[in-house]
Amino acid sequence: MLHLSGGSPRTPGHLISAADLSRDDAVLILDTAEEMARVADRPIKKLPTLRGRTVVNLFFEDSTRTRISFEAAAKRLSADVINFSAKGSSVSKGESLKDTALTLEAMGADAVVIRHHASGAPYRLATSGWIDGVVVNAGDGTHEHPTQALLDAFTMRRRLIGPDAGLGQDLSGRRITIVGDVLHSRVARSNVHLLGTLGAEVTLVAPPTLVPVGVESWPCEVSYDLDQVLPKSDAVMMLRVQRERMNAAFFPTEREYARRYGLDGDRMARMPEHAVVMHPGPMNRGMEITAEVADSDRCTAVEQVANGVSIRMAVLYLLLGGSEPAVTNNATARTEENK
Amino acid sequence: MLHLSGGSPRTPGHLISAADLSRDDAVLILDTAEEMARVADRPIKKLPTLRGRTVVNLFFEDSTRTRISFEAAAKRLSADVINFSAKGSSVSKGESLKDTALTLEAMGADAVVIRHHASGAPYRLATSGWIDGVVVNAGDGTHEHPTQALLDAFTMRRRLIGPDAGLGQDLSGRRITIVGDVLHSRVARSNVHLLGTLGAEVTLVAPPTLVPVGVESWPCEVSYDLDQVLPKSDAVMMLRVQRERMNAAFFPTEREYARRYGLDGDRMARMPEHAVVMHPGPMNRGMEITAEVADSDRCTAVEQVANGVSIRMAVLYLLLGGSEPAVTNNATARTEENK
Amino acid sequence: MLHLSGGSPRTPGHLISAADLSRDDAVLILDTAEEMARVADRPIKKLPTLRGRTVVNLFFEDSTRTRISFEAAAKRLSADVINFSAKGSSVSKGESLKDTALTLEAMGADAVVIRHHASGAPYRLATSGWIDGVVVNAGDGTHEHPTQALLDAFTMRRRLIGPDAGLGQDLSGRRITIVGDVLHSRVARSNVHLLGTLGAEVTLVAPPTLVPVGVESWPCEVSYDLDQVLPKSDAVMMLRVQRERMNAAFFPTEREYARRYGLDGDRMARMPEHAVVMHPGPMNRGMEITAEVADSDRCTAVEQVANGVSIRMAVLYLLLGGSEPAVTNNATARTEENK
Repeated sequence: MLHLSGGSPRTPGHLISAADLSRDDAVLILDTAEEMARVADRPIKKLPTLRGRTVVNLFFEDSTRTRISFEAAAKRLSADVINFSAKGSSVSKGESLKDTALTLEAMGADAVVIRHHASGAPYRLATSGWIDGVVVNAGDGTHEHPTQALLDAFTMRRRLIGPDAGLGQDLSGRRITIVGDVLHSRVARSNVHLLGTLGAEVTLVAPPTLVPVGVESWPCEVSYDLDQVLPKSDAVMMLRVQRERMNAAFFPTEREYARRYGLDGDRMARMPEHAVVMHPGPMNRGMEITAEVADSDRCTAVEQVANGVSIRMAVLYLLLGGSEPAVTNNATARTEENK
Repeated sequence: MLHLSGGSPRTPGHLISAADLSRDDAVLILDTAEEMARVADRPIKKLPTLRGRTVVNLFFEDSTRTRISFEAAAKRLSADVINFSAKGSSVSKGESLKDTALTLEAMGADAVVIRHHASGAPYRLATSGWIDGVVVNAGDGTHEHPTQALLDAFTMRRRLIGPDAGLGQDLSGRRITIVGDVLHSRVARSNVHLLGTLGAEVTLVAPPTLVPVGVESWPCEVSYDLDQVLPKSDAVMMLRVQRERMNAAFFPTEREYARRYGLDGDRMARMPEHAVVMHPGPMNRGMEITAEVADSDRCTAVEQVANGVSIRMAVLYLLLGGSEPAVTNNATARTEENK
Repeated sequence: MLHLSGGSPRTPGHLISAADLSRDDAVLILDTAEEMARVADRPIKKLPTLRGRTVVNLFFEDSTRTRISFEAAAKRLSADVINFSAKGSSVSKGESLKDTALTLEAMGADAVVIRHHASGAPYRLATSGWIDGVVVNAGDGTHEHPTQALLDAFTMRRRLIGPDAGLGQDLSGRRITIVGDVLHSRVARSNVHLLGTLGAEVTLVAPPTLVPVGVESWPCEVSYDLDQVLPKSDAVMMLRVQRERMNAAFFPTEREYARRYGLDGDRMARMPEHAVVMHPGPMNRGMEITAEVADSDRCTAVEQVANGVSIRMAVLYLLLGGSEPAVTNNATARTEENK
């Protein structure tokens, strides 16, 4: 069993933030996800690896997409999945996270996938000593969303280098541009850190009011001119505009936002021919991305979703270990298929 | 693998509307459901057929009964089931059906069972090219509810002909009466079309204001006199009154509705001795059906629920195919039981 | 297959109330739970016993903890689990319990785990003839919560006698004190009856206004002085204060409640050294129990949660029977592990 030790040794055996991951751990996850992606091509798209293990999806915020991605990943590894929507229930209050954790631990949860509105909740869960099981951060406040960053890196590696050629590789020298409301985006935060670790050169493009304080210490550049950055980008990642966070202080109109920071066909034409457009979904067509771009072959939004399942399988597999090899042992695989 | 091609070749590999089914496809589904019904009698009520396949229940409307019927059917075939309640979530808005579909496809959904308040949503999902997986309509607006019609036909064939004697048979010459708010009923619509295809003679009995425009082109008769039709009916299907759709324009009172269109013991006595009373559930006892009738041996409401699981197993099995035979191969079955 | 016949023969094959259980049935459940607890130590924490069986969690009240405990128990026995949250749906109205029951029966539910706000609903479900499947009461109104009492008894036997030494034993001569709002507590009610059956001496400590009418007929003593009872207690069970039920008529302030009926470190020091503190969870720290006591080694709250899964496995196993032995047959177990 591998422990994802990360840059900080404080969270062994958990996945709390992309910033914790070492280059080798990150590459191992991407390589393992590549193996997992091949399971989808098999007659029976299932591995017996996590049979008898229980994965709990502990969601304090609604997020159907992320929840079912983890659910599909866990079931494809033959784990039992229990969904625990804490929203609105008595456990949704922060003070009882401890009791919720103790309860899940006592019930035999081998992994807890947690989504929480408060930044730091997964870290607290993992380091509290409340549970022995593995903790996977599925998004906490404006902090991090590490599996999103991993699936994004996986998508870039597949597209820019190739599924097979990419094995063992990081993203050294690739130029990635992240565009939009960086201030409120855990996706941006996780990506900046992971991409830095993987050797990529990251540029943030955001309205001045939506650049986080302290960005100087992040491993990236900041620009306010999208058109100038596009020709030097191997991948352009458009963040989702969260309309409830937009207000007149930032922009006079949505149209103004789209004009300055949205990606349309004309802008996409300025990108190098090999460059891809990424989006974590769901897309606001006409806002941060036009339908033309969203539906083009260069947009990887749908691949990102598929890759999300492979990445989450890899993370659960690596963290929960199990005595069995993942996919490489053909005998195991064959046995499973014949059952 | 069988493709349910239907009268229209536009939706191969999906089940969108009962009107699309050919007589042979419909009979094949009924015959397969007969095999599936036998699984319930086995020591281990499970088939390995869809192991490793993922069935997503995508419900934009609440319908616990239909959802758990599909869930039970899929699990009995060993599929993994993911429930996706879109109600109230960001995907409940019509404009994002596309992105939801692309997401489910990317996550590896082999079948999407969709319930939607908008007529035509399942058709759009199936024909959009958004997904490769199978689409099964679990009720869309006032349009269709094809698995309900299939389970109704299955119930009639079992009752009027017999489980074994019915194999390969349609409902030629059987006289079926459908009573109630036909205008708003997708159940009625699906039944009229499927029963026509299966050779039955259908009569609709409804208040004049609740007969759909264009009923002339449907394969059925219309009557306004229930008492006159009952003696010539082999099956009488009572539609559920949806109280929120009733108003003073149609009837002075609920009692008036019950008096003219409700089925009570006296009316049931006018039916031929072999004739059955059907109801899709849940029943409004005292409204469209009295408790006496609902609880009599001639009422098939509970059988219809059980038959619903068999029909949905048959539909998922036929659409998702799989290389393995369903139940007929005893060696496969035995192996599964011994595991 | 064993029938839990209880003191009353009226509910064979169900678990409706702890008061129904005979001493021998109760001890059998505790002994079986001891076997189930060992499954958690195995490499694959799963038994094949209920493969192909369907357990429906029918919850008319929210209770995530109880629901996931039953869900984990059923899945660990390899049953299929269907969650049916009736809250807010059309079936949440009492009058349709019958139709809900008939529906679940028809869909092939082998067991229905029911939680209901109305006392007596599980009994009605079990004795109505509506279903053939097993009914397990997961809490009904202020009536009973029998699996909670069983897991409490299991926890006491393990702590006061020992996991192995306790096999076959009841709680004869043990002195158990139950403290708090007995009037509204189904947990207290179930515990009093089960502990009486198991030979324990039970003392209730409650504010005078929160002692139920008719308590004279219960197999227990009543006291109003906690400090006086503590030194003579082998286990002290603190009930959860349900704040919405507290009002000025009972107490001037929460602080006053904590002062008279709460358990703090000083009070715990009055208990015999071997005595344990129990709580059904979730705890109101600072109200009925201080954080110091809640987090001490003497508090069994977390063990109770873990024991809850074992007890529910035992109950489902015993009620659903199955032709296979539980855990004692090593060949079966080994086969399952090797799969």
